[in-house]
Amino acid sequence: MARKAAIIGGGVIGGGWAARFLLNGWDVGVFDPDPQAERKISEVMANARAALPALSDVPMPKEGKLTFHGTIGEAVEGAEYVQESVSERIELKHKVYAQLQQANPGVLIGSSTSGFKASDLQKGSPAPQNIIVAHPFNPVYLLPLSEVSGSPANPPAVVEKTVEIMKAIGMFPLVIRHEIDAFIGNRFLEAVWREALWMLKDGIATTEEIDDAIRMGFGLRWGQMGLFETYRVAGGEAGMRHFMAQFGPALKWPWTKLMDVPEFNDELVDLVANQSDAQSGMYSIRELERIRDRNLVGFLRALKDRNWGAGKVLKEHDERRAAALHADLAKGVDAGNAAPLAMYHGQVLPGWIDYNGHMTESRYLFVCSETCDNFLRMIGAGMDYVAAGHSFYTAETHIRHLDEAKLGDQIRGEMQILSADEKRFRSFVRIMVGDTCVATVEQLCLHVDMKAGKTVPADPQVWAKLEAVAKAHAGLPMPEGAGRAVGQKK
Amino acid sequence: MARKAAIIGGGVIGGGWAARFLLNGWDVGVFDPDPQAERKISEVMANARAALPALSDVPMPKEGKLTFHGTIGEAVEGAEYVQESVSERIELKHKVYAQLQQANPGVLIGSSTSGFKASDLQKGSPAPQNIIVAHPFNPVYLLPLSEVSGSPANPPAVVEKTVEIMKAIGMFPLVIRHEIDAFIGNRFLEAVWREALWMLKDGIATTEEIDDAIRMGFGLRWGQMGLFETYRVAGGEAGMRHFMAQFGPALKWPWTKLMDVPEFNDELVDLVANQSDAQSGMYSIRELERIRDRNLVGFLRALKDRNWGAGKVLKEHDERRAAALHADLAKGVDAGNAAPLAMYHGQVLPGWIDYNGHMTESRYLFVCSETCDNFLRMIGAGMDYVAAGHSFYTAETHIRHLDEAKLGDQIRGEMQILSADEKRFRSFVRIMVGDTCVATVEQLCLHVDMKAGKTVPADPQVWAKLEAVAKAHAGLPMPEGAGRAVGQKK
Repeated sequence: MARKAAIIGGGVIGGGWAARFLLNGWDVGVFDPDPQAERKISEVMANARAALPALSDVPMPKEGKLTFHGTIGEAVEGAEYVQESVSERIELKHKVYAQLQQANPGVLIGSSTSGFKASDLQKGSPAPQNIIVAHPFNPVYLLPLSEVSGSPANPPAVVEKTVEIMKAIGMFPLVIRHEIDAFIGNRFLEAVWREALWMLKDGIATTEEIDDAIRMGFGLRWGQMGLFETYRVAGGEAGMRHFMAQFGPALKWPWTKLMDVPEFNDELVDLVANQSDAQSGMYSIRELERIRDRNLVGFLRALKDRNWGAGKVLKEHDERRAAALHADLAKGVDAGNAAPLAMYHGQVLPGWIDYNGHMTESRYLFVCSETCDNFLRMIGAGMDYVAAGHSFYTAETHIRHLDEAKLGDQIRGEMQILSADEKRFRSFVRIMVGDTCVATVEQLCLHVDMKAGKTVPADPQVWAKLEAVAKAHAGLPMPEGAGRAVGQKK
Repeated sequence: MARKAAIIGGGVIGGGWAARFLLNGWDVGVFDPDPQAERKISEVMANARAALPALSDVPMPKEGKLTFHGTIGEAVEGAEYVQESVSERIELKHKVYAQLQQANPGVLIGSSTSGFKASDLQKGSPAPQNIIVAHPFNPVYLLPLSEVSGSPANPPAVVEKTVEIMKAIGMFPLVIRHEIDAFIGNRFLEAVWREALWMLKDGIATTEEIDDAIRMGFGLRWGQMGLFETYRVAGGEAGMRHFMAQFGPALKWPWTKLMDVPEFNDELVDLVANQSDAQSGMYSIRELERIRDRNLVGFLRALKDRNWGAGKVLKEHDERRAAALHADLAKGVDAGNAAPLAMYHGQVLPGWIDYNGHMTESRYLFVCSETCDNFLRMIGAGMDYVAAGHSFYTAETHIRHLDEAKLGDQIRGEMQILSADEKRFRSFVRIMVGDTCVATVEQLCLHVDMKAGKTVPADPQVWAKLEAVAKAHAGLPMPEGAGRAVGQKK
């Protein structure tokens, strides 16, 4: 049975949480008195469905069930976890917790608060130990950070359960050692926000110039290394101590106006809002959200390729889910399955689309490669085998384009072995979208001793598995289109 | 003749500037009394050669000539621009400028200073108008931001020339409206640095936790949108004014400790350095640099795919250099060149490598697609043609792998037309590394009415150009390997 979370407050943040839970297979009950809540959450869901699966290299679980409720009590029924994302008013939060704990006394409550400490949130509760901070960053369905901050009233088991739930939905829970207002991330955002408002007010720079100063420079560094690791590198061969010695004295220089706070009045709001309109007003908020999401998917994919930072979080989330999948694939191979083997499941990603609006042709071959790599892993010729000096190299490939795959399509690679001996195999991969075969890829792969650079027989265990599949597939009819040359008459 | 820049000070920053100028085809004369300068710059160059060309989709210009000089006077001879990156000591900078202006009176001097205003730098100079701030961010060869900040002594022509030079080497010059210490970027870095040191000192978080708080969350946002555009989106449908109303009051809350400055003593330095060692000490600085550069290339590539932010700067830099290239390609097509047409020049990028250490198979097809797309552009069937409803679709492909392309290889796609009529053409692309043909790709492409979804004759002008190439190529011998099916005996 699916696990269930309750979402109290369905704005940008609450909607983002709902999307993350649902797409990770949890059922979600929502309470939000706003009559627009259902529409708003459905819009966040549409964004999230287009973006979050694009980060996964294993099939997503079946989407959970989303329900809307008229009372907090109904929403929290059967939930093991609540994410509270109501407005930043402490009395309102206390009222919500009282209703939650009355309806479901043992439920764990995480708050999206930007600034209140857990001990503030817990005041007056009959079960303060079950209330904790789990502070996310927008868009919640893409950014992995969740700042988990408890008070001394939270026993370790509650912190651990919160961490487990965050990981289950693919987040990076950062447990904060001591309670402070605004935790870590918002402290920095607040510092930069103050300095930025001064610059606007003093006419030093516009909103657009400030954004450019960030995204053309240190913003790119921070997305992958943060502050200290970046400076460690900047210190060069002499390292962090050298950097500190160089940069430390500047702490005393009067660079910053942070000692003072600009007056927050209508004039300041107008200045910011008007400059922001000039900068970004040509895009609707929905357009900006989609642009942002595609950029973030691009960053996160780049980091995942390199198993670094937030990309490492994605890889680990995949690995947790891949174990069951690989066991399934291996079973198919071991059984001598007399049918083509579905060895790849994925989704057509934004970067895969060409200017015709279809999946670009090289990505068909990419899907085939992934299919073949999974097959090789299943017969014992994966990374370790390659590391030990042997590999299957593709010698020749023939592709037929029969139909088109489009952005967001669920795509599948099915492997059929046409013939095999100890030194080579001929394969035929069907690339499927549902029941439609959009392309076929026929290949000849040679088993190579990489160091010697020549074709040699495969390891006996690998060959035994390959042979078993080849025998099981020997009874399948030769696929239509196999053995064709380009442009050959039918 | 190549343009020439002088680089005074060859550390991490000066070396980064040198690399950017050299890789963009400028000659560079370096002065740095450090006996290690030549080694240090050669290491920065090795990093830059592996990273910067990976951002370009047009061939890089011939690398400029790097020379080292024993005096400032020799280094600046024949230079039209100087980038000064010596230590942050104002007397030293003044001394350097005096020597530069004596040896080359009219030369434009940009300073990499992190904090001094142009008017500080100009003091005592006989030609203050030629001294300006051009403040970069590390790694200079990848991050596009250059903060250009002049004083009232700098005439507009000097600012414009600085902007032109920055653009010529692919940077994003941000002209600052008024002089302030530390310009824009470092103001923010200073604010965050102070807050971060407080957190370390107070034991709230370690260097690693702070870096994670940044790179798992808002750091990813900032690399593509910056501060204000991010908040505009966060405001949701109600936009910037709503966001300001929500977040504004927090300005008065005591979240930050920025009002005060932590004492900079040995204890603080030890705390930071020891935590940094625990966090990143398993990597050498060189390893961290390469990791950082690959991540940045990934981010910048993702942005370039979407023509956004720093990726837009890269695209525009390409376009400036592509005009001449495209004119050349078009000439080749127009001339009815009786030889295969080199329609693609590129470099094997880090993300293109498979676990065998070779270019992954789908990237061979990618290089072929790029070759074919450029060819189609040259015969008048580019983006505009597709937007008007017609396109060439690949029906069938045959690939032979003959040799291997490796990371960093310069790679070329040569197009030969085997046959053509008004509705289709058969092409043969050789993928070349130097004189070695690493793969061949034979394809059948059909001319399609995209809306009707059927094959139709091409536009007469397109067909005329295609036919001319087909006729010119008719005399070429049929390539070895054309017409093969997979696994066919020779």
